[in-house]
Amino acid sequence: MAKDQAKAVLGIDLGGTKIYAAAVNRRGKILGSARKKTRGESGFEATVKRMAKCALEAAGDAGLEMSDIHAVGVGSPGPLDLKEGRIIETPNLKWVDAPLKAELEQLLQKPVKVDNDGNVGILGEHAYGAARGADHVIGLFIGTGIGGGVIVNGEPLHGFNDNAGELGHMILDPGGPQCGCGNHGCLEAFASRLAIERDIRIAEIQGVETSVFADMKDRGERLRSKKLTEAFLNGDPAVTLAINRSASYVGFAVASLLNVFNPEVVVLGGGLVEAMGKRYVNLVRKVAKRNVFSVALRNIRIVAAALKDDSAVLGAAVLAWQIPANAPPVKADAQ
Amino acid sequence: MAKDQAKAVLGIDLGGTKIYAAAVNRRGKILGSARKKTRGESGFEATVKRMAKCALEAAGDAGLEMSDIHAVGVGSPGPLDLKEGRIIETPNLKWVDAPLKAELEQLLQKPVKVDNDGNVGILGEHAYGAARGADHVIGLFIGTGIGGGVIVNGEPLHGFNDNAGELGHMILDPGGPQCGCGNHGCLEAFASRLAIERDIRIAEIQGVETSVFADMKDRGERLRSKKLTEAFLNGDPAVTLAINRSASYVGFAVASLLNVFNPEVVVLGGGLVEAMGKRYVNLVRKVAKRNVFSVALRNIRIVAAALKDDSAVLGAAVLAWQIPANAPPVKADAQ
Repeated sequence: MAKDQAKAVLGIDLGGTKIYAAAVNRRGKILGSARKKTRGESGFEATVKRMAKCALEAAGDAGLEMSDIHAVGVGSPGPLDLKEGRIIETPNLKWVDAPLKAELEQLLQKPVKVDNDGNVGILGEHAYGAARGADHVIGLFIGTGIGGGVIVNGEPLHGFNDNAGELGHMILDPGGPQCGCGNHGCLEAFASRLAIERDIRIAEIQGVETSVFADMKDRGERLRSKKLTEAFLNGDPAVTLAINRSASYVGFAVASLLNVFNPEVVVLGGGLVEAMGKRYVNLVRKVAKRNVFSVALRNIRIVAAALKDDSAVLGAAVLAWQIPANAPPVKADAQ
Repeated sequence: MAKDQAKAVLGIDLGGTKIYAAAVNRRGKILGSARKKTRGESGFEATVKRMAKCALEAAGDAGLEMSDIHAVGVGSPGPLDLKEGRIIETPNLKWVDAPLKAELEQLLQKPVKVDNDGNVGILGEHAYGAARGADHVIGLFIGTGIGGGVIVNGEPLHGFNDNAGELGHMILDPGGPQCGCGNHGCLEAFASRLAIERDIRIAEIQGVETSVFADMKDRGERLRSKKLTEAFLNGDPAVTLAINRSASYVGFAVASLLNVFNPEVVVLGGGLVEAMGKRYVNLVRKVAKRNVFSVALRNIRIVAAALKDDSAVLGAAVLAWQIPANAPPVKADAQ
């Protein structure tokens, strides 16, 4: 297939709770999309099949055949081996050494490029969103876990082993709560949706009022970001405490990142920020500004992701468009 | 003067307690050197005069005339305005808006290039020391305060306002001790020589034994790194506690930096590390390795600075050699 004939790429955002795929044209326009649950506990093989199905559905939603598709980009939890496109380990999904690129290439028969979920998120915002035109950018994506991505001198920061940008695992208090990664006091252990949920449950046990469990059939049910937001906006005491703690620790992390990277733009995204909106970003900004050298704040912006839930699929699309048209074709599975 | 005639540059390391200047040839060899006390409390003007005198003495020590000198490089505490070569503010020396480059150029009649003390430290180690050949490097310099420097893709990281690399002000516990910068729980507030001294004094008040104050005429006298090291190697209880706390927090910071930057080499330098040597670096390495994704440790080195006290003057020399030979001459002071 000649390069010109490709109408779109498929971007896939592999999250802790959901898979989101989109067919995206060269100008970053989403032509069609699809979503599925991740169900990481069903195992890597089952999830990667759902990813492929989700991608095909996104193409179908855009009215495209696979012959119209140039390539596939994926944002995945890490750490990753970027060259091989393998997941080395992932605290939330509990997979180890999972050959994501190879499996998806077999299933979709298209070249696949994989990067860290945080990197693709900030790539999307850098290409089409809140960080357009900035050379130094930090992205923090707050959802089930916390992903990060860094752009230095206009390029994603990958580091020596391709695993830079694990901003969710900055230590903000070595005596803090245990994180999914096994360590204590990581940003993610203070500020992710799971951390907020844990804090609300602890506060309730301690006698702080909350209404969020009232209408649950099963009290073990997950608290969704939408429900958290409603309770937060209604002033629910336990939720207010937990959200303020989350935003404060994100603020401390942003302050550290401003002192370390001195970026022009800090983009806050992910499911939680998308649901909470301005109120959450304002809390983060206030704490960050109090804890940083004033010079690192000059002409700096701390803003919500402009692409909302689409940051990662659009960044994954940027990855896919980076694959050259003359890339070697994917081979059919050897029998 | 033609470029070829310059035999050396002058590198100046402006520290919290001392000024160290060296005449350095093109291959990074120190031909002569001199030291003076900083006496920051005497004010910027007085200190900058001592810096110029110290630089002239270093040239003299090398048997060089100022006509043999190409240019001058300086490592200074920050934040800085790099283009203007101004100190914007400096927590330890209490100066604000100090025109370091302009003053030194007037006094020495040579072009001057200024960078953050941490940046020049890691530039020196990158050019001639423990990080030679590495593209991704972190430097932490632990002395009176804590300076940092970062090399990404082979180049120093400056960021949007030229103030990246303030690694001493990463927040490691928002409820921690107050830092010289005004915030709470910065790395510097846990781990600098001043923090160690504070912790020893607190421990003594709390009844922990220590011998370090026994032979002091004035109990307010500063504890020097050499004395701390002797007491540490002799197992002094209060000193052991304080040094372990310092090394642990440096370890937590290194863990965060490994997850954030995924560097190939982490260089630990500065007066305290130089005095303590392997014992301190081993403590840091142990804590760092426990608190980081294993992938960020693959083929990673956490090592002591190879140039010891010379990292910063040699990095300042690298800066000075970057000044082109056809740079506009420094004008005599307008009357």
